[in-house]
Amino acid sequence: MIAEIISVGTELLMGQTVNTNAQFLAQHLNELGINHYVQTVIGDNPKRLIAVTEQAEQRADIIIYTGGLGPTQDDLTKQVIAEYLDEELIYNTGTGLTANKRKFTGQNIEVTDSKLKMGLVFSDGETFPNTVGKALGTAIKKDSCLYITLPGPPQELKAMFNDYVRPFLIAQLDEQMYLESSYLQFFGIGESDLTMKLDDIFKKQTNPTIASYISPSGITLRLTARSSSAQEACQLLAVMRAEIYQRMGEYIYGEGENYSLSQALADYLRAEKLTISFAESLTGGKAADALVSIKDTSEVFRGSIVAYDADAKATLLGVRQETLKNQGMVSAACAKEMAEGARKIFDTDIAISFTGVAGPAEMEGKPVGTVFMAVAHRGQPTEVTEHCLPGQRQNIRQQVVDMAFRALTKMS
Amino acid sequence: MIAEIISVGTELLMGQTVNTNAQFLAQHLNELGINHYVQTVIGDNPKRLIAVTEQAEQRADIIIYTGGLGPTQDDLTKQVIAEYLDEELIYNTGTGLTANKRKFTGQNIEVTDSKLKMGLVFSDGETFPNTVGKALGTAIKKDSCLYITLPGPPQELKAMFNDYVRPFLIAQLDEQMYLESSYLQFFGIGESDLTMKLDDIFKKQTNPTIASYISPSGITLRLTARSSSAQEACQLLAVMRAEIYQRMGEYIYGEGENYSLSQALADYLRAEKLTISFAESLTGGKAADALVSIKDTSEVFRGSIVAYDADAKATLLGVRQETLKNQGMVSAACAKEMAEGARKIFDTDIAISFTGVAGPAEMEGKPVGTVFMAVAHRGQPTEVTEHCLPGQRQNIRQQVVDMAFRALTKMS
Repeated sequence: MIAEIISVGTELLMGQTVNTNAQFLAQHLNELGINHYVQTVIGDNPKRLIAVTEQAEQRADIIIYTGGLGPTQDDLTKQVIAEYLDEELIYNTGTGLTANKRKFTGQNIEVTDSKLKMGLVFSDGETFPNTVGKALGTAIKKDSCLYITLPGPPQELKAMFNDYVRPFLIAQLDEQMYLESSYLQFFGIGESDLTMKLDDIFKKQTNPTIASYISPSGITLRLTARSSSAQEACQLLAVMRAEIYQRMGEYIYGEGENYSLSQALADYLRAEKLTISFAESLTGGKAADALVSIKDTSEVFRGSIVAYDADAKATLLGVRQETLKNQGMVSAACAKEMAEGARKIFDTDIAISFTGVAGPAEMEGKPVGTVFMAVAHRGQPTEVTEHCLPGQRQNIRQQVVDMAFRALTKMS
Repeated sequence: MIAEIISVGTELLMGQTVNTNAQFLAQHLNELGINHYVQTVIGDNPKRLIAVTEQAEQRADIIIYTGGLGPTQDDLTKQVIAEYLDEELIYNTGTGLTANKRKFTGQNIEVTDSKLKMGLVFSDGETFPNTVGKALGTAIKKDSCLYITLPGPPQELKAMFNDYVRPFLIAQLDEQMYLESSYLQFFGIGESDLTMKLDDIFKKQTNPTIASYISPSGITLRLTARSSSAQEACQLLAVMRAEIYQRMGEYIYGEGENYSLSQALADYLRAEKLTISFAESLTGGKAADALVSIKDTSEVFRGSIVAYDADAKATLLGVRQETLKNQGMVSAACAKEMAEGARKIFDTDIAISFTGVAGPAEMEGKPVGTVFMAVAHRGQPTEVTEHCLPGQRQNIRQQVVDMAFRALTKMS
């Protein structure tokens, strides 16, 4: 089975938005084992839509359109495809019933009532509800090609795909097939290094299949097993998961398609009933922000002191003037006193401090990328580590927060 | 002049990366006044590359390829195009001279020496230096179609385009043309509202042209004027800029393609010689992080106290127990005392506090999106504002920081 994605929207041709829909669909077609060799982007232009559809029909069994289902005059994907296929569009009231059996093809291509437009579906096709917005998705099969129209707004498209289109496509592939996927989240290893170390698994993959993606906090591996029995699919998956855990487990921080390091830290602290606080210099609030971005962290997170200059470090965190004078702000001693200060002030089980040189210029004679990180534990000696991180300002600041979060979750 | 973009890379078809190159090129083709109706994405596959090239030739005068110039076996864009056009590839030593006149077309498609591969250029074409990476860009004209190959890594592509390809394309358009662009940054108005209010300008645009993009802190308008004289291009631009300032100036916070609200605040504080600190509850360090993301802010930014629970607000910021008990953490009184506390502690000219309900659940009987923000000034009464913000947790937290930064820069 071969699919093609046709993204419709003048905003894509103008560069107003980036085509995240194509990436999302590509990942999921890949998961489903549907081959996919060409993506096309065009504007809101009926003639061009037909021209690229004719080309796609030569190459694919499934054409997935995104965009052009909205309420404005430009939005014409369904109408153009209906006219091209000589298929009837009807108005779906949203309850699954079709109240209005008026035909909207041919001369009726310019429906102006926006509500009516977004509720159009193929009378002989499939309808996909939209739980986020208003425009309905549709699918229709004609001459052995399947045409699927999906909304352009990414949140609408993702929800519709996950809830309705994915099961529909699985049913198209094989009514008896069960598909199980696992997403393993890695940190502390680069993508080429990880895939090289699992090269044998990547090369011999058939079932389960395996794919790697770059995620905000590292690398994601997706494993997908398929079988006529759900149990067997799960077993196939379990075997590959176990092998990857055995070989690369030290780099895995969690599972789940969008499972972040911040979520992993929050889950760890909750499970262990630990509280945390931060003392931040070069990270400037980034560690606190990352944890607060996760909901319901108030039981584990108390606060952070962002002390950007030497005065603030001394006054607020109790870093000794002697330390600042003799060893400087970018030093193991300063990091230690910052973490211990924050731990006492917030009365938390753990406190982490970050001090270093984010750049662009060096500081206190230390090069850009030098970072000291300290972890203070209640009733235990404070651990300090020194790091030399590559990259630019934002990258250095992000890396050190990720490293700290990962180090903490490893303690369990 | 019509261009098409062909993005080459199996990682795009797998959904491993999002196609930001197409967005970047789309924006810049639009700026140059080069029409652009179709984008195509394919994998590292020579046959498909030729097939989509043949289709693009029917529609376009310029074909821009991205990707497939790297060192690995899969990277074959230049070699495939050279063979297809029957053009010679030679090795460029990087000094602009071509040391090796060996022909690489035809049977030589599989060059395996990676350094050699990345240095291949058309003997009869244009060469674009790569200031970020190693793979050289190329351009060659054949039968009235211009073929341009650019590297896939976004940083390499952007630098090469801005420094070499853009001037090259301008010269192709008209040797005597000057092109001047201005980027105006808006905050506090939605894209549809802004474009509707400037509808007459958008509709009658010829020279200068105008386009809108969504930016991280709001909306960007790009104005581009062209003329045979640089002076006239600047004048045309100045007239449109003045009109937009006159009509929508209250929403403009700055100029420049990537000028952010954080940069605007840092610039404002530096210019006015003011220092700032924050007291953060729901924003959880996001305000501090935004300012620290800008380089050289240590002269204006002192620090932030992230006080996530009531205790921390009382102990660290001096919010009175009476206030917390009678009015709660999400109150104007709490916001006021937080800001005044931070201002005193950090001894800054300005301090801003944020307290509110980011969700997902309501708090103290106040609905999600309720935010109190206070601005304390040295020697002046503290101003407190209440906001009711739409959206989800991350969006609410980001909006309130943006609003505060914008409010401050407006004071000048």
